[in-house]
Amino acid sequence: MRATIMYRAGDVRVENVPDATLKQPTDALVRITRACICGSDLWPYKELPPTPNGRRMGHEAIGVVEAVGADVRKIKKGDFVVMPFACSDGTCEFCHEGLQTACVHVGFFGYSEGMGGAQAEAIRIPLADGTLYALPVREDDALVPSLLTLSDVMGTGHHAAVVARVSHGKKAAIIGDGAVGLCGVIAAKRLGAEQIIILGRHPARLELAKAFGATDVVTGRGEATAEQVRKLTGGFGVHSVLECVGTPEAMATSVSITRPGGAVGRVGVPHYQSIPGSESAFYKNITVGGGPAPVRAYIEELLPDVLEGRIEPGRVFDRTIGLDEVPAGYRAMDERKAIKVMVNP
Amino acid sequence: MRATIMYRAGDVRVENVPDATLKQPTDALVRITRACICGSDLWPYKELPPTPNGRRMGHEAIGVVEAVGADVRKIKKGDFVVMPFACSDGTCEFCHEGLQTACVHVGFFGYSEGMGGAQAEAIRIPLADGTLYALPVREDDALVPSLLTLSDVMGTGHHAAVVARVSHGKKAAIIGDGAVGLCGVIAAKRLGAEQIIILGRHPARLELAKAFGATDVVTGRGEATAEQVRKLTGGFGVHSVLECVGTPEAMATSVSITRPGGAVGRVGVPHYQSIPGSESAFYKNITVGGGPAPVRAYIEELLPDVLEGRIEPGRVFDRTIGLDEVPAGYRAMDERKAIKVMVNP
Repeated sequence: MRATIMYRAGDVRVENVPDATLKQPTDALVRITRACICGSDLWPYKELPPTPNGRRMGHEAIGVVEAVGADVRKIKKGDFVVMPFACSDGTCEFCHEGLQTACVHVGFFGYSEGMGGAQAEAIRIPLADGTLYALPVREDDALVPSLLTLSDVMGTGHHAAVVARVSHGKKAAIIGDGAVGLCGVIAAKRLGAEQIIILGRHPARLELAKAFGATDVVTGRGEATAEQVRKLTGGFGVHSVLECVGTPEAMATSVSITRPGGAVGRVGVPHYQSIPGSESAFYKNITVGGGPAPVRAYIEELLPDVLEGRIEPGRVFDRTIGLDEVPAGYRAMDERKAIKVMVNP
Repeated sequence: MRATIMYRAGDVRVENVPDATLKQPTDALVRITRACICGSDLWPYKELPPTPNGRRMGHEAIGVVEAVGADVRKIKKGDFVVMPFACSDGTCEFCHEGLQTACVHVGFFGYSEGMGGAQAEAIRIPLADGTLYALPVREDDALVPSLLTLSDVMGTGHHAAVVARVSHGKKAAIIGDGAVGLCGVIAAKRLGAEQIIILGRHPARLELAKAFGATDVVTGRGEATAEQVRKLTGGFGVHSVLECVGTPEAMATSVSITRPGGAVGRVGVPHYQSIPGSESAFYKNITVGGGPAPVRAYIEELLPDVLEGRIEPGRVFDRTIGLDEVPAGYRAMDERKAIKVMVNP
């Protein structure tokens, strides 16, 4: 089968690899009908050192179950499923608490060694019953793009909003106009925020943010930007900041624009060793939380809104490509020529 | 009148100063019946650069109102009152939200310039109606020591527990065996924690922690300590960490011993520029919050438990001195010969 492999920063190839197969009795084999390229894939695309055997890429997909192992009870052959970016068995204490990204039965961050990548024709999914979610639609449904976002970006934007304690009538700011930030706007509106400020720099993305419910747009960087946010909010900043970038600058801005007593939900993979603004956060009594979103837990909550058209996160996809075009897809996202690329293998 | 003035690290004196008087129509003049020395007073005691005019010391007290300004409506002459460490007017949006330490009508951190210190015979209290809390007992009540802790340490320990989301049946750890940490133990037990681990190093304090409800004691420092906590908690750490020290080491240990999905409530004045363990906190989905406790908000909740004897935070006082002995009181606390010193002016 064909699959995407990254060999070093900037070097992504689509190659023939051995077909995905069942290995464990708890596995499912999924034929991928749509996958995508993630903003977080751009970190290795910028930074991956030379890796002779390459790294299989892709952690978001939707597809059809082709086979299941002997111990799989809930997921069945023929199910149309969404694959959360992290595996989880659904039985451990963290899974029961809705924090599947801390499942004790898989490795670091829900990653299961040897499962392959989703930017491919097929993938082996470990712990299928706990990981996969069977959808009540067919693979040709018009809602597929939005359903695909439940694999990561919509659940991740929602996580940022939940951790940032967005609630009815409150003021929220979203840092980052990538797909996660845009889904963060959807999540903030869905949870009732009254004022939704998007901080970004790309006109087309900011337009989409407004379509999703952003009430204010702030462009630029650093302290001047923070000053703009404070001006827009009566001087105090916002109750909730959704940090969807992961740089130290974005984190510093987050603390700077949070109102006393407010909260930051960070979902951008942190590229900083320590959280800046410790004293400011302390004297303002700000809470900083977040991490890898337990998207598996959130599907239940978000799915009805997708199915009934109340939210349309699939609009973050502005380019669809075939599998062989994946390297061009990475380039387009890296050069900010595409917000998020959908792959049709 | 006599008052305590610090001139530089280690140089605390009790001197004659002009009598405290009303200056603003919203002021109250309080004759102090008991004050105390705070663990946070030890920071300037270690670090204050030479300060020619000195710094008036003390921010915790209980006393009798001697006079009120023309605009004071609720507080009356003769009231026996507790003074929260931060002033607040009780009318701004933050006061209404219960975050009086962010009151927009006073300066940084609830500090009102020129109000004097509480380690004195009397003090001028700005914004008396919002700041002071009139108690339903007399100044000679046996509960005075416990009531006095509502001025800071009991409310601060409670704040750490609230921010760390201590709740029924959960596991909590308290870092620091000073008065705030000990009150944190009381707060964790009061909020229903099932396992309460105190991290400290002073036998007498750890005994008191056990009397307050600590179920486990861990001594030592650093990663070995963290490993002990993980062993005591089935390998994952605690749901809630109350960080009551303020050093970077204490903060790093806090992140290290928090269970995935858990929370750190930090109330130790931070002596670190950025919060360590950013990546670990992220991948574990840990929340870090806290700051100056809105003790004014908490009096309402904690007072009945003090009055009815369900909690006895006054047991943190292990030495009572007169005003002229205050310099010796600082020494005793700095040398860890006293947990917390009560001053009877």
